[in-house]
Amino acid sequence: MSLARDLTAALPVRLLRLLRDEGPLSRAELCDRLEIARTRMLAELDRLTTAELLVEAGPAESRGGRRSTLVELNPGLRFAGVDLGATSMDVEVVDSRMETVAAFSEFADIRTGPKSILHRVNELLNKAKVEGAYERLDAIGIGVPGPVSFRDGVPVSPPIMPGWDRFPVRELLSREHGCPAVVDNDVNIMAIGERHGGVAHSVDDFLFVKIGTGVGCGIHLAGQVYRGSDGCAGDIGHIQVESRGPVCSCGNIGCLEAMFSGAVLEALAIEAAKAGRSAVLEERYAANGTLSARDVSIAAAEGDLASIQLIREGGRRLGGVLASLVSFANPSMIVIGGGLAQLGHILLAEIRSVVYRRSLPLATGNLPIVLSELGPRAGVAGAAVLASEIAFEQAL
Amino acid sequence: MSLARDLTAALPVRLLRLLRDEGPLSRAELCDRLEIARTRMLAELDRLTTAELLVEAGPAESRGGRRSTLVELNPGLRFAGVDLGATSMDVEVVDSRMETVAAFSEFADIRTGPKSILHRVNELLNKAKVEGAYERLDAIGIGVPGPVSFRDGVPVSPPIMPGWDRFPVRELLSREHGCPAVVDNDVNIMAIGERHGGVAHSVDDFLFVKIGTGVGCGIHLAGQVYRGSDGCAGDIGHIQVESRGPVCSCGNIGCLEAMFSGAVLEALAIEAAKAGRSAVLEERYAANGTLSARDVSIAAAEGDLASIQLIREGGRRLGGVLASLVSFANPSMIVIGGGLAQLGHILLAEIRSVVYRRSLPLATGNLPIVLSELGPRAGVAGAAVLASEIAFEQAL
Repeated sequence: MSLARDLTAALPVRLLRLLRDEGPLSRAELCDRLEIARTRMLAELDRLTTAELLVEAGPAESRGGRRSTLVELNPGLRFAGVDLGATSMDVEVVDSRMETVAAFSEFADIRTGPKSILHRVNELLNKAKVEGAYERLDAIGIGVPGPVSFRDGVPVSPPIMPGWDRFPVRELLSREHGCPAVVDNDVNIMAIGERHGGVAHSVDDFLFVKIGTGVGCGIHLAGQVYRGSDGCAGDIGHIQVESRGPVCSCGNIGCLEAMFSGAVLEALAIEAAKAGRSAVLEERYAANGTLSARDVSIAAAEGDLASIQLIREGGRRLGGVLASLVSFANPSMIVIGGGLAQLGHILLAEIRSVVYRRSLPLATGNLPIVLSELGPRAGVAGAAVLASEIAFEQAL
Repeated sequence: MSLARDLTAALPVRLLRLLRDEGPLSRAELCDRLEIARTRMLAELDRLTTAELLVEAGPAESRGGRRSTLVELNPGLRFAGVDLGATSMDVEVVDSRMETVAAFSEFADIRTGPKSILHRVNELLNKAKVEGAYERLDAIGIGVPGPVSFRDGVPVSPPIMPGWDRFPVRELLSREHGCPAVVDNDVNIMAIGERHGGVAHSVDDFLFVKIGTGVGCGIHLAGQVYRGSDGCAGDIGHIQVESRGPVCSCGNIGCLEAMFSGAVLEALAIEAAKAGRSAVLEERYAANGTLSARDVSIAAAEGDLASIQLIREGGRRLGGVLASLVSFANPSMIVIGGGLAQLGHILLAEIRSVVYRRSLPLATGNLPIVLSELGPRAGVAGAAVLASEIAFEQAL
């Protein structure tokens, strides 16, 4: 690849992103949009075509003069996104426009360790290949439910991932599939997904709050994921919300995650059912032997007071933490995602009420607090977007 | 000024900063340090010399070959820094190396409004001029104790600054002195000061926590001040720390600032003196008719238990908020400044104890929590640095 050293590193990445997000564009449009002189653009297009990242896509519609040629990303490009949860595995292969060409979603216990989990990831990716989803992958992005050294491509002391500490996840995936790979925290990839194709589209400063088995926060500042000095920024699940609260899995007292999370909500719902405080929950518990966030959500929609109260109490706890973070970070949007986002508007109303009451009016004047648009797909979609970014950067 | 359009905007700014912070450098050193080819550097130096920002400073020491010429910032450059507090005004004029050439510090009640306060600022600056500190100013930086629209150069709904809302501070100063001006929040300029010439030197991600009459936080991320989407990021004084606490000036209950700040500490100290819980405080109160943070600090140093307890209780409150912010932002340093920083190591020990106990080990492993090095000068020094940055940017 002939690399013209005097180009700023950012141009080809910006060009490739534009084609990924908007589809075929004419050379003239590319020059306009990126504010680049024609000569320089043609050289860049040549270079990226030689690198098989771009192809010509026929003539553009006439703008009066000579017809400009349309350019698009090579439709053969394939990126894989992997989203590992505490008990789930989502794997997708997407094309150059981030459209899904293969998708798998199954139960997986992260505690079985990196070898068996990544072995299964590879099996699913190979299955997609056999089924014709791709010939070769151009990059893989993977999110894991714990702190990550983004630079080194390894998990770092992840509390709920025994055996994963410093395991070479990036290296293993990269070697297995012969392409670049990138490892990030699950909440960061959800934020990336939501910014690329969801409700935070084109928002530069926002928080993506995930409430699932645990609680975490993806931070987007100035259009970039902010990871902090050790890569663990956004670990809001262990912020103390009650000095005399229950003991958390981390050993501290009254963490947010110990007061409101998928696991806690299930336990409280079962408690309410057993204590006879909710006929609806009691009935569902008797039928299934357990209760989930979904049961609470359905019961609340039916007007079950105990369920509504559980959701509001959780929303109040989370809202208190978010009010503090709004005062500190002054974001322009908060997105609520993860499994408990299905608690919907009762949860949202409570969070909003606390944040709008507690934070500085200047910071909440234009602050939407909304539910994730991509839902359970946010993570895997974001992982695929992150994969494409790495492919673009490494193609320089 | 002949502006070569193909230069990236950042080079001249980086060049001017380097000379400001390191003093005279040879052309060869400049090329090495900024990784710029000699031809381009010479063109840039010519341009900045014509703009009277640079001068030649004689021959460099020989490096074996032909002697290189030393270049330095024009020693006639003058920047003004102004730090307005709730009850204080600091004005300094500095030279091209940020050395103080004139300094004034006096009582000023911010509530007397912008016209009288800025009139006094102008009087002090004119006094410095008459005394020979400068012939003309190249830029003015000013910090105010409230939220600011950095883009518009005006305070926005500042709670403790009646009459200042949207007052054209930048425009007035700029017109009066015929130079660029820049307006920022007081905590942001303190953070800038501490990063330029204090304990946070060369640290890219840190929090500067000011505890004075009120409480606020300057946020430095990736080497830049982070101001948030409405310019009010860092407003941590109104984070709730006690749901059944006292009413704050903002109307909410149990804000950090209502539990620990200069005003609160004074009130609690007087209460302790009156209740006979501290002989030392009682004596000082009888002598002066009031008590300040300084009295509490001196009493604590003499071993007064009531004073030590007041400091520790405040440190515990602040520490709890900082522990949450460490979990969220994962900074690489926390600097404690403002008037109450004089409470010193008793305060620091308590803050550290809470943060190290409450936050994720990964985030606190390499996290120094330290006292401001510049002390009361942090704000005015930072305002002068900010002024120089604006002068450099506008000189393009």
